[in-house]
Amino acid sequence: MKVAIQGELGSFSHEAAMRILARAAFLPCARSAQVFDRLDDGTVGAAVIPIENSLAGSVAEHFDLLLTREVFIQSELYLRIRHNLIAPRGVKLEQVRKVFSHPIALDQCRQFLRALPRVEAIPFYDTAGSVRHIMTEHLPDAAAIAPKQAARQYGGRVLLSGIEDDRQNYTRFLLIKKPRKLVRGANKTSIAFALKNAPGALFKALSVFALRDISLSRIESRPMRGHPWEYVFFVDLLRGDDEPARNALRHLGEIAEFVKVLGIYPAAK
Amino acid sequence: MKVAIQGELGSFSHEAAMRILARAAFLPCARSAQVFDRLDDGTVGAAVIPIENSLAGSVAEHFDLLLTREVFIQSELYLRIRHNLIAPRGVKLEQVRKVFSHPIALDQCRQFLRALPRVEAIPFYDTAGSVRHIMTEHLPDAAAIAPKQAARQYGGRVLLSGIEDDRQNYTRFLLIKKPRKLVRGANKTSIAFALKNAPGALFKALSVFALRDISLSRIESRPMRGHPWEYVFFVDLLRGDDEPARNALRHLGEIAEFVKVLGIYPAAK
Repeated sequence: MKVAIQGELGSFSHEAAMRILARAAFLPCARSAQVFDRLDDGTVGAAVIPIENSLAGSVAEHFDLLLTREVFIQSELYLRIRHNLIAPRGVKLEQVRKVFSHPIALDQCRQFLRALPRVEAIPFYDTAGSVRHIMTEHLPDAAAIAPKQAARQYGGRVLLSGIEDDRQNYTRFLLIKKPRKLVRGANKTSIAFALKNAPGALFKALSVFALRDISLSRIESRPMRGHPWEYVFFVDLLRGDDEPARNALRHLGEIAEFVKVLGIYPAAK
Repeated sequence: MKVAIQGELGSFSHEAAMRILARAAFLPCARSAQVFDRLDDGTVGAAVIPIENSLAGSVAEHFDLLLTREVFIQSELYLRIRHNLIAPRGVKLEQVRKVFSHPIALDQCRQFLRALPRVEAIPFYDTAGSVRHIMTEHLPDAAAIAPKQAARQYGGRVLLSGIEDDRQNYTRFLLIKKPRKLVRGANKTSIAFALKNAPGALFKALSVFALRDISLSRIESRPMRGHPWEYVFFVDLLRGDDEPARNALRHLGEIAEFVKVLGIYPAAK
């Protein structure tokens, strides 16, 4: 199967996609919209996208795309974001004078970088791309900060692993496909729904779950583009496609402007 | 008054801070935690931080800092994110071969950059910093993408304005101070509260507002660090410090593990 990933080969998206679908062929896409386009036109049968990070929060653009495009979530994965110092073979730690990476990765390894003497941090477009850069340019004094997968991808060597300052750094990834197919063991449902901004509107909407003892694991409101006084809510339910969940969603349909089921899939862990 | 901003002089944070407090002296801070540290140790009397962007979503780190540090929101501002092509005086548009900026800004001007012939986009740490870079290096063929404030700050000239691909790009900024002082005309309240993950917990919590006809303008859940089955909710109420709001918060205190009022301030617009 061909799988689109948002990011380069060797990125965290690639790492997450390998864990979900080890034997797939991966198609890197620079832009999020491209990932959904490739699903739409049938170039790929599935895609893996980051949806939220424990430090940085949710990827709003991906929620917007899940809302507007016809795709269905098939599974989720929490990936621990582990940064590595990667260099060409033969380059030793004490020879490193330049460290390339995406500004966010450099920022997440700030304490580590401060401890390295005479090293300059150089921002680059992409974590995996920075590894490719130091490998193709044969830089004798350069290293890059990237996922381990980037070292495998471009033939670099991991000098140090786990150099991120904060270990509570997780990204949640989603596997999405075009067919609305229910996976075995699906016990979690992601939905989006819109409400007009009136007192108690959200309370009424959530009553459909509370009255049926359905737990939520996540809620987020986003203003609706072009509709200043309407809100879209993204909610995860800890239930699969059972009778109470179906009733709750039908009930929610009476209250909300619209309800969209984004996916029904097995909860991670 | 001295005001800390998260970002460089000439950044969007600086632009937002100038709109809120035109005559202040601004102290740029590279890291978010530093902004809160400078408030804590009294170096500054106020600070301006971005809290959410219409395209990128919320700045999770700032929500976490609002939760853990003793500060109080005094006002909010929505800033339209307008990117500009800025060059040293004398450099004409047709001479530009390199465009420096933060990867996110380059990405948000992708269509514009594609239309410029023979131009290389070069990622840089910071939008405002990229203007300072091309000015101090006297690069004859370089421009930078940054806020207009960066041109004023570093003596650059705006070649083109409003070059972002998507105009629906707004960032919400907060003015925060250490004293818990109520501003005149305060009609919006930001709170955080924690709930154990039980069916109907959020529904019960929101009943305290619904039963009193109090509107919410925003809700977001975040897993609590180190407490895997507890959630923190960040909620904005469209009410100031009136009797029903006080009653609702007291009522919420009976239901939630904790309630923290992050600020009571006038709603923007």
